Amino acid sequence: MSRAADLRSVRAYRILPQDDPLLTPHIGALIEMLHYTRLTTMHEVAGLTVEQLDTIPAGFGNSVGMLLAHIAAVHRIYHGLSFEGRDVFDDESYAPYRLALDLNEAAREHIRGRELSEYLTELEAASALTMDGLAARDDVWLASDLGAGSGQEMNQHWAWFHVIEDEVNHQGQIRVIRKIVAPRVKAGEQT
Amino acid sequence: MSRAADLRSVRAYRILPQDDPLLTPHIGALIEMLHYTRLTTMHEVAGLTVEQLDTIPAGFGNSVGMLLAHIAAVHRIYHGLSFEGRDVFDDESYAPYRLALDLNEAAREHIRGRELSEYLTELEAASALTMDGLAARDDVWLASDLGAGSGQEMNQHWAWFHVIEDEVNHQGQIRVIRKIVAPRVKAGEQT
Repeated sequence: MSRAADLRSVRAYRILPQDDPLLTPHIGALIEMLHYTRLTTMHEVAGLTVEQLDTIPAGFGNSVGMLLAHIAAVHRIYHGLSFEGRDVFDDESYAPYRLALDLNEAAREHIRGRELSEYLTELEAASALTMDGLAARDDVWLASDLGAGSGQEMNQHWAWFHVIEDEVNHQGQIRVIRKIVAPRVKAGEQT
Repeated sequence: MSRAADLRSVRAYRILPQDDPLLTPHIGALIEMLHYTRLTTMHEVAGLTVEQLDTIPAGFGNSVGMLLAHIAAVHRIYHGLSFEGRDVFDDESYAPYRLALDLNEAAREHIRGRELSEYLTELEAASALTMDGLAARDDVWLASDLGAGSGQEMNQHWAWFHVIEDEVNHQGQIRVIRKIVAPRVKAGEQT
């Protein structure tokens, strides 16, 4: 197993679930996809200042900082939904993550003034639990539905694809916001 | 095999590669993910008028119409790169797709005035070739690198995850643009 440390590595552009024989195939593929997704998120936000992280451009509802906090919160929420089968929307131990999950007026007020490193530390902590939780499970579990306690009608495979999808979706927004708050001069750059 | 026709179906929230025994496992999972991704794209753009599809809000480089054309073009380009092992950037038969691929000034000038149905027809045509091309191949192929002729250092599994990732990334931008050009009044809606 030799995952890429950043997007400059050729290994980043290979999904190789078979590289880790301890993982079942679909778990292995999801972990590879989660890893690549996070490398691209980190690439998009590299070097942003507190002011840039806090800016909510006209037309947008969120800052880059809020979206980073949201991405980490989605991982935390899915630990509860998927690994523990809990109804995280009715469980007080998940209340701390709801602020960033909801991305509403309260989030706009409270998620600001933080250094990039603070967001990245929480992203890394949340992802480490995701990776460990998935690695401890297998493809039979992945095909199963979420626990009844979670209150959700989805299967585990969809749940973790959705965590990837949610991160990538917000990455698309981060890319546009970054161009407004911290334009990079690069020939032929695309939106 | 019984994939969901829209996001109201519970089947949409299940990734079930094992539902189609004719597909190898990772090919099956990618097809499930591609299908779900497209359902969410179609949900995001449903009902948009030509004017709404053409609007490029302040701060953005693209309209929703341009992004829809881009998503279809990415499928077309990856048919060449992945299935045919061609260098699509140096092959004139792929020239028609470069306008939407590049999303530059020329795209802003030429990709406009089209009905939603026109974008959806091309999205469906491009995706049908993706699905057929993948279904005709297997997981051994998926783990392999792209043909030398493609000029790309990536493996097939990454390539098709990237096609999903690119669509989801632009979906995130479409969601923000839609809120500006065609606001929906819905309690608690998130960005």
